[in-house]
Amino acid sequence: MASQQLFRVALRRTITTVAAIKTPSTIKAVRYVGPSLVVSGGVFLYSFWPGGGHVSAAQKETTTIDTAQFMAAPITQLDTLEANQDDTKTKMELLILRIQTEFCRELEKEEVGQKFLVDRWQRHNPKEGGGITCVLQDGATFEKAGVNITVMSAPLSKQLQASMRARGKALPEDKQFTFFAAGISSVIHPRNPHVPTIHFNYRYFEMQDQDGNNKHWWFGGGTDLTPYYLVEDDVKLFHGTLKGACDRHNPTYYSRFKKWCDDYFFIKYRGERRGVGGIFFDDLEADKPEDVFGFVKDCAEAVIPSFLPLVKRHKFDVVSEDQRRWQLLRRGRYVEFNLVYDRGTKFGFATPNARIESILMSLPLHARWEYMHEPEPGTPEYKITEVLKNPKDWV
Amino acid sequence: MASQQLFRVALRRTITTVAAIKTPSTIKAVRYVGPSLVVSGGVFLYSFWPGGGHVSAAQKETTTIDTAQFMAAPITQLDTLEANQDDTKTKMELLILRIQTEFCRELEKEEVGQKFLVDRWQRHNPKEGGGITCVLQDGATFEKAGVNITVMSAPLSKQLQASMRARGKALPEDKQFTFFAAGISSVIHPRNPHVPTIHFNYRYFEMQDQDGNNKHWWFGGGTDLTPYYLVEDDVKLFHGTLKGACDRHNPTYYSRFKKWCDDYFFIKYRGERRGVGGIFFDDLEADKPEDVFGFVKDCAEAVIPSFLPLVKRHKFDVVSEDQRRWQLLRRGRYVEFNLVYDRGTKFGFATPNARIESILMSLPLHARWEYMHEPEPGTPEYKITEVLKNPKDWV
Repeated sequence: MASQQLFRVALRRTITTVAAIKTPSTIKAVRYVGPSLVVSGGVFLYSFWPGGGHVSAAQKETTTIDTAQFMAAPITQLDTLEANQDDTKTKMELLILRIQTEFCRELEKEEVGQKFLVDRWQRHNPKEGGGITCVLQDGATFEKAGVNITVMSAPLSKQLQASMRARGKALPEDKQFTFFAAGISSVIHPRNPHVPTIHFNYRYFEMQDQDGNNKHWWFGGGTDLTPYYLVEDDVKLFHGTLKGACDRHNPTYYSRFKKWCDDYFFIKYRGERRGVGGIFFDDLEADKPEDVFGFVKDCAEAVIPSFLPLVKRHKFDVVSEDQRRWQLLRRGRYVEFNLVYDRGTKFGFATPNARIESILMSLPLHARWEYMHEPEPGTPEYKITEVLKNPKDWV
Repeated sequence: MASQQLFRVALRRTITTVAAIKTPSTIKAVRYVGPSLVVSGGVFLYSFWPGGGHVSAAQKETTTIDTAQFMAAPITQLDTLEANQDDTKTKMELLILRIQTEFCRELEKEEVGQKFLVDRWQRHNPKEGGGITCVLQDGATFEKAGVNITVMSAPLSKQLQASMRARGKALPEDKQFTFFAAGISSVIHPRNPHVPTIHFNYRYFEMQDQDGNNKHWWFGGGTDLTPYYLVEDDVKLFHGTLKGACDRHNPTYYSRFKKWCDDYFFIKYRGERRGVGGIFFDDLEADKPEDVFGFVKDCAEAVIPSFLPLVKRHKFDVVSEDQRRWQLLRRGRYVEFNLVYDRGTKFGFATPNARIESILMSLPLHARWEYMHEPEPGTPEYKITEVLKNPKDWV
């Protein structure tokens, strides 16, 4: 089942020899190679957009996209992307490709030689799209870092159609719908307990019926922080950067999306949040997609300035055995939230042929559960749990 | 919130000084003390059975129960137990108290001095009962061993009433029901990867309306094994012992309950089972409760002979770093099953004021998740995953 193969892949402007990786041993071998282009399936360039891509010769010559900069080739056929550069689908795919690359490269700078493993994959039915999963595991700075993009298009199942209606989307019962989704999702678990875990996810969703009518579209996403120890300056920098991105678009966004985040990342049975929050939103629409796209772009571009300073500040902090143990206990809670509550994860579990390893790359390398562990009042461990129980305003 | 207190607890025949334990530091201090009796709440002896326990003087003198043998005092008031010794509720509570004690004592014999922490707790409303949680953590032989009993009685919520109807119980809509549940649940995660993890759970459920009519009762339970490496003789001993208990009661039980177990402990999104199975059953009834009780008693008594030989055989086996890593990866899968699928855990998450630490004591001390880890064909790690994908008949 797991065999090693070599593909020779022709990109528009580059020819790269890449190794398809399927087995853990080859993963291990490949992940030190550097920023190479890795393909996990056979067919490489394809178009899967419904009715997408009528490319004129003129367009072909005047617009080009430099794909060599990305972690791997786009999921959508390059012709299609180039011919539809004003389409929000194209803009979103190129945005997440760029953000993925920039974020991975910035994180690699904090490592000691280790590079991201790049795993380009396709859906079971390649016409439905695929994704690029970038993982850096067991590094000096990052214990587990995953940055995943997905671009897919598929018929909307009856079940999902009903759930969309329940969410207020006007979908006529007698029509068949297809949906398109493009998103980036990332969780970074640093090794040092004084560097927080970060998660972000930005996604664009579009659907229309078989005649190209009844079109709906919206954006969703968010960025949230899970510190193991509370350093107020760090949390203020993080929230302040997100607030800056929000404020440039709508003065109500930050306070609304901050509260939404506190409400969403809640482990109900423990009465505590996963972390110190950030922003979270869904079903965001406007008259024109480009208005919301601009906001989402700003949020995605705020990830690096909101997080990288915290990595630089604390990655060499002295760590005691007790602090490491506390970090692992809190990572257990992270696992609990993701497996029990996270909608994206649950949606993945319920999706036939979902790429489960890309979904569960959010789980930490190590986690720990101790019976009845409760930090003593007055300790730094206690201090952070108080904030998880009672969210604060930071900026 | 967490204070240390001393209770002087008067049992019918013994007077024992015990320490109430609430904080991790006291847990740590207490857990080496030995087989002491520990009480985690104030009120100790109480009756919570609905309408239970009209005790005559004659009964009081002729029937006595020696509670000093148990890990802690029964949950139900001793008067009530003694006055209702033929009641299945009493029989089940005394059975699980005894099984808990015997199992904990046998496990302690495999340890190097370390004893179970005994944590007797009450429901938020003490009239609804409580439980006794025994935990041994970070031992030489057992990385995490939890043996929990619960005895509770509470009004049946409308939601639970509906779900009982969906399961085929005839419950008139115009009646209010109370339920009684008594069960033992245990998960043992040994340190050595060559010793499997075992889980078992046996429970008795009873309900009736406010007039004492429309009574329903049933038993459920099972025992299943999760090896990290496949040793066929071990699995045959385990399954053979369970089959012996089944065959003494009904020649169809083993094959039916073995299949039920394979179907239940299934991680659907991974297409693999949690382990090599065992037996699993629910809603088991008969003309007389004592017939099913006899079967459940035999199953519960089969736990020690099905598992302890495997501990003794392998607890000193040589372990490589790779084997330990594999064990932790498989413990990650254990966490996945328990948080995503296990009905008891999900029921606990949905129950207001459930004692979450007793529910999640099933989680291992350590777990690990690596992106795309797949064992190489031909390796011992590969061999066990094949069995998890395609369950076998062992006896």
